[in-house]
Amino acid sequence: MAAPRDGSAHPFDLSEVSFLKFRIFDGARAAYTRVSRGRRDGGQQIGEDAQTSEHAHVTCPDRRRLVAGLAAAPILRAPMRTASKTDHAMNTSAASAESVIVFDVNETLLDFSVLGPVFVRIFGDASALHTWFNHVILYSEALTLSGDYAESGTVGVAVLRMMAQASGRTVDAADLDELRCRSGQMQTYADTPKALSDLTGAGYRLVTLSNNPASAVDAQLTHAGIRPFFASLHSIDDRVRRYKPAVESYTDLAATLGIAPADLWFVSCHAFDTLGAAAAGYRTALVLRPGNAPVGLGRAPDIVAGDLGTVADRIVQAGALPGRSPVRAPGTR
Amino acid sequence: MAAPRDGSAHPFDLSEVSFLKFRIFDGARAAYTRVSRGRRDGGQQIGEDAQTSEHAHVTCPDRRRLVAGLAAAPILRAPMRTASKTDHAMNTSAASAESVIVFDVNETLLDFSVLGPVFVRIFGDASALHTWFNHVILYSEALTLSGDYAESGTVGVAVLRMMAQASGRTVDAADLDELRCRSGQMQTYADTPKALSDLTGAGYRLVTLSNNPASAVDAQLTHAGIRPFFASLHSIDDRVRRYKPAVESYTDLAATLGIAPADLWFVSCHAFDTLGAAAAGYRTALVLRPGNAPVGLGRAPDIVAGDLGTVADRIVQAGALPGRSPVRAPGTR
Repeated sequence: MAAPRDGSAHPFDLSEVSFLKFRIFDGARAAYTRVSRGRRDGGQQIGEDAQTSEHAHVTCPDRRRLVAGLAAAPILRAPMRTASKTDHAMNTSAASAESVIVFDVNETLLDFSVLGPVFVRIFGDASALHTWFNHVILYSEALTLSGDYAESGTVGVAVLRMMAQASGRTVDAADLDELRCRSGQMQTYADTPKALSDLTGAGYRLVTLSNNPASAVDAQLTHAGIRPFFASLHSIDDRVRRYKPAVESYTDLAATLGIAPADLWFVSCHAFDTLGAAAAGYRTALVLRPGNAPVGLGRAPDIVAGDLGTVADRIVQAGALPGRSPVRAPGTR
Repeated sequence: MAAPRDGSAHPFDLSEVSFLKFRIFDGARAAYTRVSRGRRDGGQQIGEDAQTSEHAHVTCPDRRRLVAGLAAAPILRAPMRTASKTDHAMNTSAASAESVIVFDVNETLLDFSVLGPVFVRIFGDASALHTWFNHVILYSEALTLSGDYAESGTVGVAVLRMMAQASGRTVDAADLDELRCRSGQMQTYADTPKALSDLTGAGYRLVTLSNNPASAVDAQLTHAGIRPFFASLHSIDDRVRRYKPAVESYTDLAATLGIAPADLWFVSCHAFDTLGAAAAGYRTALVLRPGNAPVGLGRAPDIVAGDLGTVADRIVQAGALPGRSPVRAPGTR
């Protein structure tokens, strides 16, 4: 049961259920934790509690069963509650154009270190994960520059095989199954849920823009328990089929949203990504995940911070600057 | 004294002087070796000898002095000899369109491992050199995709600083000086001179296409002793200012040479590079330097081989296939 993409109806009462966290353990157990936060109208947090539930027999290689398990989880069938004002602000189509924030997904919101064991097994070295990721970006860009396109999963497998051949290793079907499965099991960074909650609580509308197909991102965000924060999910795979940081990928999204790039924020942990978004005219924020740093090329990000909470705070502050209307829930002043 | 770029006059008699090899030792000594090969008209090698000469006081950080030392080397002032038939074939503007081979430079012809000590000093890890190189490609591509441009040296320094910041290291002016200096001191791979010699001996005209400015490539190839093999040096920095593998970089070169892409060979050790050239319509050859492998994306290379000698042999063989006229020196049948 994925949240609807248009954000017009929301399966959770965000005033109370801030996020769901879903974990897969080695073997056959899965657990999700429902973290609830109460808020007053002004957005002030007044309490938090967590309930954890476990499911048996949800194993890694069976991704369909995993997603089915998620859909069947009773917590996802919890009765709807009356929408709060913050809910309304996030979901209304009348939200201010200035209230939309576009997020990159992998490594920005989700920690991809869950993929590590696959690379340790193939290459005997955990650092191969980052090498692989950089090669995936390099070859995605190369395809776009050479006027070609292949879906990101195809690029990922081709690059993995290239790396293996170059180092005398082999990649078997089980490795690929596990890579695909684990790609759907990324957890959020510790600071992700609260930052998203704070931003939606402040009335911002959140969307994603990924190099990966939107269906895969939908499953990832659902699994990580943060799908409800996003009004819609977008991918370069939808139409433009030119990989970020191709400037067209950002301008196409702005056109789709019907919002001028200058009125959109773009948040990513990848310097190449904010470089492209800034070139397209977005305001940009770079969050420095471990191993990432700004690059002194092109237009610099408007915000650089070491954690997503600080990024969220500074975006809200920027919205309150003279000449920038702060985003308010309808009915408030 | 750099060789003229248009290839119309050649400072060496290629029938006898096949290549010069220039080495810098730690400290203040430099040596060059003149390797001479005699050939009969048919291109058969009949002998080889080498003379080595040493220069004192050519130190690494003083690149200008290094180049000046090269220019002053007596061997480079050796008297011209009568051009052989193979010389004539390489230099004549009437050479067959099918006789032109475009080479990538760094890692394809020149071994960049001479840069290693800079990365060991900054990062304590020799593998940082390859990470840096891949990031340079990734960010060069990112600039092109975002519609921006900075010269390759600027990208290289920005990426080095980014990597250092991300890992809590520092880059000082001496590191940058040494990186620049060592960039000009790359040696050829062991198989490079003979492969180039065989191709020019077979009547092919050789040119380069690099992401680095042609002046830098000129100094590199001169230092490595293989500048005389090339009729002209080309760079994306000359005009198009879109980094390889942007398809425009290859089509621009074809237009400059006045030769259809389908009549050009492109040789590189980088899968992303042959991917772009193939997309532009070139015939392509991938030479697998250590750590490189083909990638199963886009148009596959026509030739994949583990060394440049095999690439050269197979290009010559392809030229002899039915429907492809072998390249001959004028006056031969």
